[in-house]
Amino acid sequence: MSRSISLAVIPGDGIGQEVVTEGLKVLAAVLPQDVKLETRTYDFGARRYHATGQTLTDEDLAQLKGHDAILLGAIGDPSVPSGVLERGFLLKLRFAFDHHVNLRPSRLFPGVATPLSGSPEIDFVVVREGTEGPYTGNGGTIRTGTEQEVATEVSLNTAYGIERVVRDAYARAQARPRKKLTLVHKNNVLVHAGRLWTRIFEEVGAEYPDVTTDYLHVDAATIFLVTQPERFDVIVTDNLFGDIITDLAAAVSGGIGVAASGNINPSGAFPSMFEPVHGSAPDIAGQSKADPTATVLSVALLLQHLGLAAEAARIEAAVQADLAERATLPARSTVAIGDALAARVSS
Amino acid sequence: MSRSISLAVIPGDGIGQEVVTEGLKVLAAVLPQDVKLETRTYDFGARRYHATGQTLTDEDLAQLKGHDAILLGAIGDPSVPSGVLERGFLLKLRFAFDHHVNLRPSRLFPGVATPLSGSPEIDFVVVREGTEGPYTGNGGTIRTGTEQEVATEVSLNTAYGIERVVRDAYARAQARPRKKLTLVHKNNVLVHAGRLWTRIFEEVGAEYPDVTTDYLHVDAATIFLVTQPERFDVIVTDNLFGDIITDLAAAVSGGIGVAASGNINPSGAFPSMFEPVHGSAPDIAGQSKADPTATVLSVALLLQHLGLAAEAARIEAAVQADLAERATLPARSTVAIGDALAARVSS
Ligand SMILES: CC(C)[C@H](C(=O)O)[C@@H](O)C(=O)O
Ligand SMILES: CC(C)[C@H](C(=O)O)[C@@H](O)C(=O)O
Repeated sequence: MSRSISLAVIPGDGIGQEVVTEGLKVLAAVLPQDVKLETRTYDFGARRYHATGQTLTDEDLAQLKGHDAILLGAIGDPSVPSGVLERGFLLKLRFAFDHHVNLRPSRLFPGVATPLSGSPEIDFVVVREGTEGPYTGNGGTIRTGTEQEVATEVSLNTAYGIERVVRDAYARAQARPRKKLTLVHKNNVLVHAGRLWTRIFEEVGAEYPDVTTDYLHVDAATIFLVTQPERFDVIVTDNLFGDIITDLAAAVSGGIGVAASGNINPSGAFPSMFEPVHGSAPDIAGQSKADPTATVLSVALLLQHLGLAAEAARIEAAVQADLAERATLPARSTVAIGDALAARVSS
Repeated sequence: MSRSISLAVIPGDGIGQEVVTEGLKVLAAVLPQDVKLETRTYDFGARRYHATGQTLTDEDLAQLKGHDAILLGAIGDPSVPSGVLERGFLLKLRFAFDHHVNLRPSRLFPGVATPLSGSPEIDFVVVREGTEGPYTGNGGTIRTGTEQEVATEVSLNTAYGIERVVRDAYARAQARPRKKLTLVHKNNVLVHAGRLWTRIFEEVGAEYPDVTTDYLHVDAATIFLVTQPERFDVIVTDNLFGDIITDLAAAVSGGIGVAASGNINPSGAFPSMFEPVHGSAPDIAGQSKADPTATVLSVALLLQHLGLAAEAARIEAAVQADLAERATLPARSTVAIGDALAARVSS
């Protein structure tokens, strides 16, 4: 039997190219001989936007759809007005490929610095809804630009959309040793959406009697993330709350240099996309200063998603070993870290 | 000349009564002889809701309106369904009295424990908009309770509402030594409201050329709050983002035991309300375990608002001195902490 992976690679802007190169290096090193890797690189991002005015066309989407998965570096550049690439590329892709499970694990590996005092034990996963909530672009303005302007943002929430992501989160919680799932929302203020999330969380929960559940308002959740992060196992939450708490979660778990994420379509109808949580960091681009670890861990999530669990575990073990040594080593370049991780996974 | 303060006191639920008693004790101790304090206590909260079904009536509002200011302990009890008292009392009062400046200072006093490592310098103020955004209750559901339910939440943002709170924040920034104002929003995703906030932030800024400004997305702001809290001086933000980041800010600045807040109507058309950020903590109610410091600091904000700046400063100095000693003392009761603070401000 021969196997192959067709991978779309989107280096993007800033440090994107540098970290993706190392991610691919580690991927090539970890794959078994019998798995053939085919990659195709796409030139999306600021450069293409300036050259053609395009961010992501129907033709682009049709081509991307043919791949098994997508690896993204980072998209975004100060030369492009805020929102254009975010909405025109990142969010457009999430919506077009129905990436409703935005998966963001937070794990504080031994030896890694955290802004928190003591030695907190951090090992949880946030399942962020990826296609609804305040991210749909609904809303608008009247009397635009005047003293009488009114602007609205409409958060859209459907039973259909919530149920599938809540179900995914229960399944992930059930597969983990602690089997605990926390719903994060603000159901005392956002009562319409809050009641719907709460109802579905409880209904689906009846099918997972072995999963312990609790509920936190998003404001209280930020407190616990810094005072008691060990209380979390799996968190399921709305698109915007998930955006906010996963940046905080990354900050307390060693920083965005090691935070990986997956934009997943569990049905497989569209390819899923894996990317570091960090942005394009134009200030350090081209200097081989960026930490490729978050991208390498995103490759592990990608392998997990494609059913190559043993290879994913080897990458995680390599990262863990490398991070444990880092404090004792002089600072290394992006390439040197990638080389070290590639060497570990192939040995 | 004789002066007097007419104060509405709302002890509320749980630990509310205990902390308000100490707040009033310190207030009585700090006031100059020639200032007459008249208080009237209102029995709002869970007890009244169970007895009468009422949270806050038009008649209540008319009576409250006659006071110079309001001191609130805490509202909320597990016996009342989530949202009823929050929406029916707390938010109703903020909206009825047009409390558009929700003021939440964060200061890490010397000697106070923080979950952050190192010795971060934390001294900033969040000016949270209090009457708009996703808090207006707009939105609804269709096909409620079914598999086809759709729920919306509508965030309402007006140039009028944003301009007045942004202007207040600029004035506060200008009055502080560092003169720095940070706008926190998510203008790359919530583009309709985001553009409006950004435009007004820039327009009003032209009138405050000596105030340095910057912008952060709310997700990035949570990272800086734990990795670089010293970068903040004054923050101005939307109602929901302000709710989230002020709980996080309280957590890193010594916890909600010391976090004070004001719901301010700067025009004076309605009385402003001052309250600790913490909730009613029913688990420790009636045990004299609650820390009244947040309430006492809220009294300082109240005095500041009423033009008694010297008295406000004396309370802050007393709190600072007391907190510096706490680590060396055995745990004290709510009453003992209140007594100690009252003794300090009157000496
Ligand atoms: C860049 C932005 C659109 C995006 C988001 O808000 O989802 C980012 O913050 C993220 O978390 O992936
Ligand atoms: C209780 C709740 C309505 C309130 C809010 O969300 O504003 C609280 O969290 C606060 O910050 O004062």
